Amino acid sequence: MTDVNTLGEFGLIEHLTKPFSLRNPSSIKGVGDDAAVIDNGTHCTLVSTDMLVEGIHFDLSYTPLKHLGYKAIVVNLSDIYAMNAHPRQVLVSIAISSKYTVEALEELYAGIKAACETYQVDLVGGDTTSSPRGMTISVTAIGEAKKERITYRSGARPGDLICITGDLGAAYLGLQILEREKRIWQEHPDIQPDLEGQAYLIGRQLKPEARRDMIEAFEKNSLVPTSMIDISDGLASELFHLCKQSGTGALIEESGVPIHLDTQLMAIKFRLDPITCALSGGEDYELLFTIDPRDTDKIRFLPDIYIAGEMLTSDAGIKLSTKGGKLHDLKAQGWRHF
Amino acid sequence: MTDVNTLGEFGLIEHLTKPFSLRNPSSIKGVGDDAAVIDNGTHCTLVSTDMLVEGIHFDLSYTPLKHLGYKAIVVNLSDIYAMNAHPRQVLVSIAISSKYTVEALEELYAGIKAACETYQVDLVGGDTTSSPRGMTISVTAIGEAKKERITYRSGARPGDLICITGDLGAAYLGLQILEREKRIWQEHPDIQPDLEGQAYLIGRQLKPEARRDMIEAFEKNSLVPTSMIDISDGLASELFHLCKQSGTGALIEESGVPIHLDTQLMAIKFRLDPITCALSGGEDYELLFTIDPRDTDKIRFLPDIYIAGEMLTSDAGIKLSTKGGKLHDLKAQGWRHF
Repeated sequence: MTDVNTLGEFGLIEHLTKPFSLRNPSSIKGVGDDAAVIDNGTHCTLVSTDMLVEGIHFDLSYTPLKHLGYKAIVVNLSDIYAMNAHPRQVLVSIAISSKYTVEALEELYAGIKAACETYQVDLVGGDTTSSPRGMTISVTAIGEAKKERITYRSGARPGDLICITGDLGAAYLGLQILEREKRIWQEHPDIQPDLEGQAYLIGRQLKPEARRDMIEAFEKNSLVPTSMIDISDGLASELFHLCKQSGTGALIEESGVPIHLDTQLMAIKFRLDPITCALSGGEDYELLFTIDPRDTDKIRFLPDIYIAGEMLTSDAGIKLSTKGGKLHDLKAQGWRHF
Repeated sequence: MTDVNTLGEFGLIEHLTKPFSLRNPSSIKGVGDDAAVIDNGTHCTLVSTDMLVEGIHFDLSYTPLKHLGYKAIVVNLSDIYAMNAHPRQVLVSIAISSKYTVEALEELYAGIKAACETYQVDLVGGDTTSSPRGMTISVTAIGEAKKERITYRSGARPGDLICITGDLGAAYLGLQILEREKRIWQEHPDIQPDLEGQAYLIGRQLKPEARRDMIEAFEKNSLVPTSMIDISDGLASELFHLCKQSGTGALIEESGVPIHLDTQLMAIKFRLDPITCALSGGEDYELLFTIDPRDTDKIRFLPDIYIAGEMLTSDAGIKLSTKGGKLHDLKAQGWRHF
């Protein structure tokens, strides 16, 4: 008997779904990207789904239910944006134990509603059922895009520029702060949590946003990235996905990886290297994408986009060039849930 | 604080989703039918999702994982067929605790694959994650249909004939047998379960099928039912949904409700009334639909369809006419999960 941990999350999905093939002509893209792509003639429908489990993906001792509802939607929309597509609908299923009250669920759905309004998507279905313990939320997001604008993980070529939106590592440090204050509170219930001045980091953890603005800016500037993925598991892990599926190597410049000042300061307090938080911390929901260098002018004047490196041929491997001028092999750590 | 049990499953969904409205023109139908309907110009995309929780919806002490995988797909496809549409794709998310081995998951996915092959649908995505305890499976099914063929719950009119496919109550009795043998086995681990001669009832519980054949027959006979729903919670509950959304009443003839001989015999062994098993037992995954009486010829020669009553005006209520000639008010029990 084989422990599921031996394969890791991505290895397990690959192993279990390998025997499946696509038989319907409308199934353009199956397992292995941010979303599935279904052909509808005039345009394509994109579908992505994610499951959030209490005690694994969220801790209700410091996550307000309204924020949880908001985040559950946003992380799924992020997968649709990562295909360069527009989310239009969501379906939300929840399994809850009897400890949850109607009022608690109203809070959760208030967060779901706020996200639907912010991103202009419709809640069109779902399922509500009971669970012996805890809460599980499963969200399916549906989007649309013209076929020629859809951006897969597999389209990058050597020489393409590697771009990152926003900044990385903040959500991970926000989580570290919340976990630290939880431990302190568990040991000394009379001490109030010290979250003073940490609004940015905690906000990035508890109420992330998806980069709708980027997809709209790409459209306005007639830019189609050559490959794209959203950064949910850390930059290193996502870069590995792009390189694996595009058949390329990559070189990332440490100095090109955007890190917020608050992230840098807090990393030092936790005795962590800020670049490690950016590379291996998760849940930033920024976009990692590559562009043809001839398209550089199309992003030059867009705010919040950073050129962090270049795609290489696959034999060059996947490397990080440090600020000190050293070259390291990147390791894809990401999150290990099992 | 309000206990979730006070509202019931359907009341809870209605309560939580009431504040949501549809804003995208492509969102034709949201919450409240077997599937959501999205407009794509030439045809529509239908999306349905269901969550199955260990200890609530399935018991692995008598459910082979392969059957569980098969059933998880079939019950979702059933929702797409219930819209008179053709399922094309599925996404499967699972959350599992570390007690599951890779081999166990291979069994589950072998069942998923068997269902995909039988119903000619593609697995195009999903999520695999860990859970502190037990297994949760969330399946999203995607289908397509021409707009004018889609059948909602809301289209029935007084005078329409009420039709039922297959036979009802068998899956419920299959479950009773499995539960009985489990109890006996727990008390006397040396006694082998006695499932002799119960293949039909147990098969209906462990390996249900969805009525793809009916949707294909409707198409061949140019029939569009006026309303339709799949029978997952028992005939009475589903009839209430059709009547509520169509604004009608209904009269069901007990003699018109199809019940398999094995179901009748086993009901008596369990001291249950067979019609009660058909009305309130769940998981038959047959179709309940209504047709314009002028379309009667279109179903006359179709096998496995039974005319069980008539839709009435709403003031007539929802009644059962017993074999003894008495008129009873029908009660929608369905399953109570909370």
